[in-house]
Amino acid sequence: MTYPIKKFNERVDQVNSLLCLSLDPDFEKLPERFKGTEHPQFEFNKYLIEETHAHISAYKFNAAFYEARGDKGLAELKMTVEYLKERYPNTFTIYDAKRGDIENTNRQYAISAFDWLGCDAVTLQPYAGGEPLAPFLERRDKVSFILCRTSNPGAVEFQDALIDGAPLWQVVAKKAVLEWNKNGNCGLVVGATYPNEVQLARAIAPNMMFLVPGVGAQGGDLEKTVQAGVDKHRKGLIIVAARSIIFDSDPGQKARALKEEINSYR
Amino acid sequence: MTYPIKKFNERVDQVNSLLCLSLDPDFEKLPERFKGTEHPQFEFNKYLIEETHAHISAYKFNAAFYEARGDKGLAELKMTVEYLKERYPNTFTIYDAKRGDIENTNRQYAISAFDWLGCDAVTLQPYAGGEPLAPFLERRDKVSFILCRTSNPGAVEFQDALIDGAPLWQVVAKKAVLEWNKNGNCGLVVGATYPNEVQLARAIAPNMMFLVPGVGAQGGDLEKTVQAGVDKHRKGLIIVAARSIIFDSDPGQKARALKEEINSYR
Repeated sequence: MTYPIKKFNERVDQVNSLLCLSLDPDFEKLPERFKGTEHPQFEFNKYLIEETHAHISAYKFNAAFYEARGDKGLAELKMTVEYLKERYPNTFTIYDAKRGDIENTNRQYAISAFDWLGCDAVTLQPYAGGEPLAPFLERRDKVSFILCRTSNPGAVEFQDALIDGAPLWQVVAKKAVLEWNKNGNCGLVVGATYPNEVQLARAIAPNMMFLVPGVGAQGGDLEKTVQAGVDKHRKGLIIVAARSIIFDSDPGQKARALKEEINSYR
Repeated sequence: MTYPIKKFNERVDQVNSLLCLSLDPDFEKLPERFKGTEHPQFEFNKYLIEETHAHISAYKFNAAFYEARGDKGLAELKMTVEYLKERYPNTFTIYDAKRGDIENTNRQYAISAFDWLGCDAVTLQPYAGGEPLAPFLERRDKVSFILCRTSNPGAVEFQDALIDGAPLWQVVAKKAVLEWNKNGNCGLVVGATYPNEVQLARAIAPNMMFLVPGVGAQGGDLEKTVQAGVDKHRKGLIIVAARSIIFDSDPGQKARALKEEINSYR
């Protein structure tokens, strides 16, 4: 097992949780008491981290919600990651940026995600093929999660297109297992809104780490997803929640309840 | 013809050029005289804009090269766009960010590209299907370029996979024509490293704007690409050059020569 996945698994044991909280501080939806501060997204994130950390194995950051505020948002994202590293260095951090370009450009994105921001993992697009993923996958100290089955309703449009009898998303999953995981640091994104696909993905990739969005506001089926998705060690899943927790009046209680519900299905 | 495409075409006529310069200021490669300044990427871009503007219809900004420097890089990107708007407001601006997520998240990416940064266009990923593209495509004042045939060697891996006899990239092109272009503001990214595909894409999408990377350092075939790709008005192409011009000792002369070479094939 490679270092970054070992880090995640140790944190899972430490807090007995597969739950990942996505800190997606949509500025319009921030509680009023944060909006007026100098660093509103950072202050909101700090509050969420303190409320929830006992139940969270990984924190994820969706780049879009920071980029909507440009360089100011990005600076507050960096402050958030620094804060986490200082306060809770054992938590796993994922830059959910869904990047994807040619190799020369991806080298810069890898610097951004892993060196500038310093996250343990990043999410990536498969459309340009496996070849340009090298600058990410060669980083043995980091995890790359490739989009396989996205959680949105329209995911079926291309991902279910049949190629020699197999849907595109399965072709992507097989490539990940056979070609992209040579350093043991490749994972897949598989949405909880498609629990049958989670089950099939687990059959294709028995030992791979899955990042699973779609629980909560998107309406994914938690019970089916957890039962179908856990690996033989009852791990291998990073179950993501965002809006349903971060904008709740008691995010700590909500995170604890979701952690326990997940554990009841493991 | 919608406003943003009209803006581009007017600029093409003004400078008699289909050439787009991608301002990708790879920090390691910056000339020493810029590296020590307070805003190295912005100063380098400013120099490039002043040297080349007479030959350039559009400037493109690849997000990765700025994000590698985090919030500092993003701030200098914003300074660059502001500078262009003030000095050369008729130039077309493209945020080459290759973004792609679920709809709720894409709404934030659209704010980032169009409102925060204020570019005329953005590049987008098709893997999650057409449904989550709505927050971009509903912006009638902006152009969305969808990745169709990327310029990298590994593009063939998934993009040539056959779906009911047609390669995936053609399925994407057809969707763009039939479904995503209702507001006349959807374009395609088609790499000059695949001139045959440029020709086929033009047959599928006779009136669509193509953003064409891959000329120069990537070795794309300029003559074939221009001859196969221009529409009936001898426009419809935005030919991108980056490394081959921006790191040349005389970027102005290099841009003029490339503009003229493109025109000789139109």
